[in-house]
Amino acid sequence: MKVGEKHYRSIWYDNEERAVKIIDQRWLPHEFKIVDLISLDDFAVSIRDMWVRGAPLIGATAAFAVSEEMKRDPSDNSLNNAWDILHETRPTAINLRWALNQMRDLLKDVPKNKRAEIAHARALEICDEDVERNRQIGLHGLEIIKKIAAKKKPGEAVNILTHCNAGWLATVDWGTATSPMYHAVDAGINVHIWVDETRPRNQGAQLTAWEMDSHGVPHHLIVDNAGGHLMQHGDVDLVIVGTDRTSSHGDVCNKIGTYLKALAAKDNNVPFYVALPSPTIDWTIKDGIKEIPIEERESHEITHIQGKLENGTLAKVQICPDGTLGGNPAFDVTPRHLITGLITERGICEPSPQGLAALFPERVLDK
Amino acid sequence: MKVGEKHYRSIWYDNEERAVKIIDQRWLPHEFKIVDLISLDDFAVSIRDMWVRGAPLIGATAAFAVSEEMKRDPSDNSLNNAWDILHETRPTAINLRWALNQMRDLLKDVPKNKRAEIAHARALEICDEDVERNRQIGLHGLEIIKKIAAKKKPGEAVNILTHCNAGWLATVDWGTATSPMYHAVDAGINVHIWVDETRPRNQGAQLTAWEMDSHGVPHHLIVDNAGGHLMQHGDVDLVIVGTDRTSSHGDVCNKIGTYLKALAAKDNNVPFYVALPSPTIDWTIKDGIKEIPIEERESHEITHIQGKLENGTLAKVQICPDGTLGGNPAFDVTPRHLITGLITERGICEPSPQGLAALFPERVLDK
Repeated sequence: MKVGEKHYRSIWYDNEERAVKIIDQRWLPHEFKIVDLISLDDFAVSIRDMWVRGAPLIGATAAFAVSEEMKRDPSDNSLNNAWDILHETRPTAINLRWALNQMRDLLKDVPKNKRAEIAHARALEICDEDVERNRQIGLHGLEIIKKIAAKKKPGEAVNILTHCNAGWLATVDWGTATSPMYHAVDAGINVHIWVDETRPRNQGAQLTAWEMDSHGVPHHLIVDNAGGHLMQHGDVDLVIVGTDRTSSHGDVCNKIGTYLKALAAKDNNVPFYVALPSPTIDWTIKDGIKEIPIEERESHEITHIQGKLENGTLAKVQICPDGTLGGNPAFDVTPRHLITGLITERGICEPSPQGLAALFPERVLDK
Repeated sequence: MKVGEKHYRSIWYDNEERAVKIIDQRWLPHEFKIVDLISLDDFAVSIRDMWVRGAPLIGATAAFAVSEEMKRDPSDNSLNNAWDILHETRPTAINLRWALNQMRDLLKDVPKNKRAEIAHARALEICDEDVERNRQIGLHGLEIIKKIAAKKKPGEAVNILTHCNAGWLATVDWGTATSPMYHAVDAGINVHIWVDETRPRNQGAQLTAWEMDSHGVPHHLIVDNAGGHLMQHGDVDLVIVGTDRTSSHGDVCNKIGTYLKALAAKDNNVPFYVALPSPTIDWTIKDGIKEIPIEERESHEITHIQGKLENGTLAKVQICPDGTLGGNPAFDVTPRHLITGLITERGICEPSPQGLAALFPERVLDK
């Protein structure tokens, strides 16, 4: 999407410089930095330390990591080593494993002297596929927004709440949860977004608010505590969130706090949708709460917050007493009975084994 | 409670200096500052700008404000003016109006030359009454914790989640929600507290974590998003929160985000208790969601966070793009059907008109 007047993706291959480039998201919204990823370690660090984040973008980054590694060393050892190192960087996002498996399955039977070329082409293709999937999710989600807008009085906005950043910065372009919002704005629909700040890492405040601002989407930033109150008072028409992994039965693992918003939506009859690109579906699991491992991140993310000082420099402040320890589960699982629908690239379905199987019959494992 | 080796209340009258003193809570947990409140404006600012906060402490501060004003000018005009100015400082906390009405009703028929003395005695009494109420709440709440502890294996802690600061810093001493915790620790029960940071003002991170640390109560700081996940996984045995205003039917208005935790507790069969000193009950209203006005605070509280820099100085950092606007409702209302019980100074009751009326029959308005 646009940054100023220029269109960017979150990751791309620069043909002139022959390098993979990313937006280093650690500095947003205060600084817009582009960096090159060269070594396998660069790629691993960029995923682990969240220079890039968001399940689809993590997958695309891993695909480029493998393709760049194949240019240096196309051996089986190198391929397996890249798979192992990259797979360990983040434990929850299913797209990481999906992309790594895509690359390894494609390359393992290919002669070594062809691997670099084929891997490069596939990495580019994975990016383009992601963009198209998200565009389709946006078009399907747009229909939901259109129906709500049709019931509004003239001048009334459709109020949409979102949690974390399932925006274009979390994907290659368009975003997942944000794609219907961008499509609605482009279609001239009056929307207003409630952006959850999304503690502890503030992806909503730092990334989603920045995206909305850059694309001119009306919005307010709110604390993660506020959504329930807004729903109680009729100030939310619709919730759309992303997902890091969705079980074959429709349970959704997403950024910590998503479950609380789903509970509030259910309690107030607010439609709660999950924007779900199909690589995010984990067909091997059924019960999301029991089967999805939840990453426990470090205490420092809870006790310290990064932002911009009045003089413009970036700094971290400690918000609690010295020595306080934080508990930091990074994701939670929203059980399917709280979800109105899953917006996939092939259409919208109910969150159930049947719903997902009807849209993706070729992917179902236990028919 | 204790700060280092010395016992403090959150507000007190210094007989030697003939001055009302408070702990200026804006600087906690990083600096422990005591300030004198002299003029009516001092008192109004200290409430409005949250040097003191928490419904019971706001009430005690307002009572002292009236008594100090009566020493300067005991006229009816002065009394009414103090009522008006103080009443406007915070719109939601019912104790403010309760304390102001207590003082005005007491003083209006008293000769002017007696008002200062009587007001001073009543302000001191309001403080002592608050301490005793909270002690009683603690003793009743202790019984709940004891029952849970009795079912634990040796060495297993009772995990209690709390939101915001309904601690001794929010009252004159003991706290409301924290009083059962302090009593449990003093009784040798193994408790562990999950402290919600409580955005936007981080009262949990700044005050509750500081209180727990000072009193030696084992605890972890968590983001407001985490509680639902912890409950899903059996890591919370009990929730105890405070309240800023409770309707006669048992709906509880408390810090924004409380409602979301109550939903999660209900969904996971975790007992959800509200520590409720009786002055916090608003007998004039029934439906908390419809009738309690919710304070909308300024955007700056959402977009900026205060903390300590690495060099030890305090600073505010901006967490979102320049120009982002925050929506900032400060409280929400938890409907009574989500609440297990109300812990009052007279015992525990169900959250219902009948439950409250049985404990406080003399207070009921529409018998």
